[in-house]
Amino acid sequence: MQAISLTPIGHVRSALVNRQDAPKQGFEGSPLATIHILPIYRKAIEDVRAGDHLIVLTWLDRADRSVLSVHPRDDPKNPITGVFSTRSPDRPNPIGLHRVKVVSLRDSLILEVADLEALDFTPVLDLKPALTGVFDA
Amino acid sequence: MQAISLTPIGHVRSALVNRQDAPKQGFEGSPLATIHILPIYRKAIEDVRAGDHLIVLTWLDRADRSVLSVHPRDDPKNPITGVFSTRSPDRPNPIGLHRVKVVSLRDSLILEVADLEALDFTPVLDLKPALTGVFDA
Repeated sequence: MQAISLTPIGHVRSALVNRQDAPKQGFEGSPLATIHILPIYRKAIEDVRAGDHLIVLTWLDRADRSVLSVHPRDDPKNPITGVFSTRSPDRPNPIGLHRVKVVSLRDSLILEVADLEALDFTPVLDLKPALTGVFDA
Repeated sequence: MQAISLTPIGHVRSALVNRQDAPKQGFEGSPLATIHILPIYRKAIEDVRAGDHLIVLTWLDRADRSVLSVHPRDDPKNPITGVFSTRSPDRPNPIGLHRVKVVSLRDSLILEVADLEALDFTPVLDLKPALTGVFDA
């Protein structure tokens, strides 16, 4: 099939610099992170407010795209599993899916968010409102 | 920022052929759809089972990527809103986010799923297990 070309809408700034620093599961206690949106997307972000819950889609640029099965959570005690049944960053199209809460929007372009587990300078692809209830993705 | 290149892992087959046919909100009563995974990704999908809840990421290939604000749900009565505060398919990187339930896996490559609102031949980018609880993305 044909290749698809994406251009990031911005990037993450975070205290997490290496994959080894990232918690293997859960991200309570993650420090605040910021999402820096490119100025050309100012109109797209202008209705985001402090307190909103967003789904952030990122491009996990340090992932290994050749990986098809893994030991979940990098723990060799977990049986090897097809990546589409895991949340491993290593997968053919390493798109990260994060649910975050907006703490503030600075200068109409910088989102300060809680609960974002993403490495520093991770490209951001999209932001969507998180829905509530059973249809929440 | 640098462009990112993705290759679909498969595509959707669905009775929804036109955007006009798609329900504006909710997708109860959507007919069953199938996701056809490319054979090279057989190992990645082999642990998916009937009954699993998955997040399906799609490429909304008929979206308008130049759109930054919309009337939500295409209803002119809704005030114009920045797309990052909406689930509009029209957005800079039109990645669709769908939560589905697996009904069956045929020939180790064809997933029959419930509740997938996606147009026929929509490219599929990734599958992830849906999580439960407050951290579900």
